Amino acid sequence: MDSNAVAPNCLSGVRVLDLSQFEAGPTCTEVLAQLGAEVVKVENPRGGEPGRILGTGPKPGDDAYYFMIYNANKKSVTANLKSPRGVALVKDMAAKADVFIENMAPGTIEKLGLGWDVLHALNPRLIYAQVKGFGTGSPYEHNLAFDMIAQAAGGNMAITGEVGGRPVRPGPTLGDTGTGMLMAISILAVLYQRNTTGKGRRLQVAMQDAQLNYTRGSFINYARTGEPQERGRAGFGPPVPPNDIFPCKPGGPNDWVYVFNSHNNPEHWRRLAKIIGRPELADDPDYLDRDKRLARADEVNEMMAAWTRQHTKHEVMNIIGGAGVPAGAVMDTGDLLAEKSFEERGIIQTQKHPNGDLRMPTFPVRFDGKPPEIKPSPLLGEHTTEVFGDWLGMSEGDVAGLKSDGVI
Amino acid sequence: MDSNAVAPNCLSGVRVLDLSQFEAGPTCTEVLAQLGAEVVKVENPRGGEPGRILGTGPKPGDDAYYFMIYNANKKSVTANLKSPRGVALVKDMAAKADVFIENMAPGTIEKLGLGWDVLHALNPRLIYAQVKGFGTGSPYEHNLAFDMIAQAAGGNMAITGEVGGRPVRPGPTLGDTGTGMLMAISILAVLYQRNTTGKGRRLQVAMQDAQLNYTRGSFINYARTGEPQERGRAGFGPPVPPNDIFPCKPGGPNDWVYVFNSHNNPEHWRRLAKIIGRPELADDPDYLDRDKRLARADEVNEMMAAWTRQHTKHEVMNIIGGAGVPAGAVMDTGDLLAEKSFEERGIIQTQKHPNGDLRMPTFPVRFDGKPPEIKPSPLLGEHTTEVFGDWLGMSEGDVAGLKSDGVI
Repeated sequence: MDSNAVAPNCLSGVRVLDLSQFEAGPTCTEVLAQLGAEVVKVENPRGGEPGRILGTGPKPGDDAYYFMIYNANKKSVTANLKSPRGVALVKDMAAKADVFIENMAPGTIEKLGLGWDVLHALNPRLIYAQVKGFGTGSPYEHNLAFDMIAQAAGGNMAITGEVGGRPVRPGPTLGDTGTGMLMAISILAVLYQRNTTGKGRRLQVAMQDAQLNYTRGSFINYARTGEPQERGRAGFGPPVPPNDIFPCKPGGPNDWVYVFNSHNNPEHWRRLAKIIGRPELADDPDYLDRDKRLARADEVNEMMAAWTRQHTKHEVMNIIGGAGVPAGAVMDTGDLLAEKSFEERGIIQTQKHPNGDLRMPTFPVRFDGKPPEIKPSPLLGEHTTEVFGDWLGMSEGDVAGLKSDGVI
Repeated sequence: MDSNAVAPNCLSGVRVLDLSQFEAGPTCTEVLAQLGAEVVKVENPRGGEPGRILGTGPKPGDDAYYFMIYNANKKSVTANLKSPRGVALVKDMAAKADVFIENMAPGTIEKLGLGWDVLHALNPRLIYAQVKGFGTGSPYEHNLAFDMIAQAAGGNMAITGEVGGRPVRPGPTLGDTGTGMLMAISILAVLYQRNTTGKGRRLQVAMQDAQLNYTRGSFINYARTGEPQERGRAGFGPPVPPNDIFPCKPGGPNDWVYVFNSHNNPEHWRRLAKIIGRPELADDPDYLDRDKRLARADEVNEMMAAWTRQHTKHEVMNIIGGAGVPAGAVMDTGDLLAEKSFEERGIIQTQKHPNGDLRMPTFPVRFDGKPPEIKPSPLLGEHTTEVFGDWLGMSEGDVAGLKSDGVI
């Protein structure tokens, strides 16, 4: 194990039967796996889940980086769900599982005979989790959704973009990963509750609905003004300058820094005025007063930019952040991978996969000082013999028979 | 209780001692409260946590909507942490708590004498959770962070914006709420583990580190190309048109719709061509072939826009989504509040606060069909007598004495 990481083992002994695919469901089960659950993906024997071929990976024609990044620390078995014996296998596993999760198109899991009613009757302790695009009862209940659809219809895009510009999709995949995190919370809460009740529950989340929680700050503005939050504005009212993203040396696409000057703390302006070489303005009432500074926003922002353009984003972050004024360099993936402390602290780790390495972030919470260790994503069916033996008591011969019969 | 909501009671009996403020920590404990934990905020008797006065609320000079939205379902007690007896009170409560959480500036909680070492020695079962801007060992360890700083330095802004434009801050407060959700997951996992071990653990998360997990999709692109993901592009390579955000009638700032045409499914184009009144192009090889369509992206996108401009975003979402092609209207807060199914399904509820109502989203996962009920955020010190009596066995007279001594 990487000495900077830990096996948190919080969920040792918890068995998760994972029929999910792409990102929202797999994110949920990846967290559970990183926290110590035994997560078993059930995949189509012909190619596995579709995420395995989304883009390229370290080895041509084999598992994509996409799959590797969303399926670390899991196991994989195969089962042909078009065969009744394949479906029966999943039921046998569900009888032994603690958690079941799926994110198929609406109605599909029920048509397969693996709906809540069936599995709950089979195993009343089973926690049954479903992720869909839109909620049951929504006018869009039967519509498909991908990340960007949930981000549009869930309120994220309307509040993202430049002032006066068109709506912009947030880069982080909140529609998928954001939703998966909320389902992980819910599964863990019911797992805890089950210690007392002995019973599983049915959990359902819609990707659209999940976005409302992440953007609930925009409901504050609506309550205050009766109007939707204006794009490009957070907080209440126009930002008191300098409070924006400023250009840095040498002018590349990600050479920018965010500087946050609190409108409640005049010390911020005093420090910034000295840093940018305008100490005479630190206590000048025409600049120290926040309303007066706001009235000359363009002038103040240009002063700030004239200074930031002479420094790299890292210099600006060090100088301004070090002076106690919040500042954040716009770091891109290359910057994050180049910043050594992420690896030293175990936040970025190398997934050692048989097809090749992948440097990626782990679940970032530290347990007694260290974040969870990343283990490789599974090859298709890599754990079929192990899991069917362990969960169902099958022999290697039994598994070979299922294979030759086309069931797995 | 709202008949569309439920008290999930997953965490009945779990006591959370909450010294957090603003959004990241409070989001974590709001989820725990909505799932049934008893969350007790410990606040400064003079005004309470600073979020109480961030902007206005339903009653002039009293709790802000900001506070109401991030502190639903919690209790509040007061304790003056500048008084040794106030700190001793918090220790007494920590001895009776299951979870302790704080998100003060680096080093502050330790200076108060409430660090991990102290509270762990006092109550080995206590789960001790800390949220900071940057991680211990990061070059920015001592820097302050707000949401936008974490979103800049954690990789979110670099991948958000228009192609060729400057970086844009995602509107959803991933830096705060996103981080809080990951801490909630971790607390729940350790709560489960504690059933076996009987021991608490120390949990720490940095807002910057948390962003890396939400943006880990950008590490896929880096692994593939060795370059940071280009702004305004998700997926791998240029999007096959029509795959963008399109303008709708009547042309207001949020009258836009996202249409996602899968590059792997030629049916999407066939259906879209018919919908936009160009059925002759459905099987025309110059348009059906995705590479040829990509070569004439501007023409195809303008065809699509010419049609969307004649319809409202809701019409477009209904027509295109109904035809099995993913489409999402850009919904703003006003649209979300006007869409009745959110209230019918309990996803948006009315917080009935003594100062006035607030319509807001709840935690959106449904437990046996219904999401958690929203209860009001607490008035400052509203539960002091109740909680000190219940947790510490104090009489009303004891509490009155603490109050007259300025301890609470």
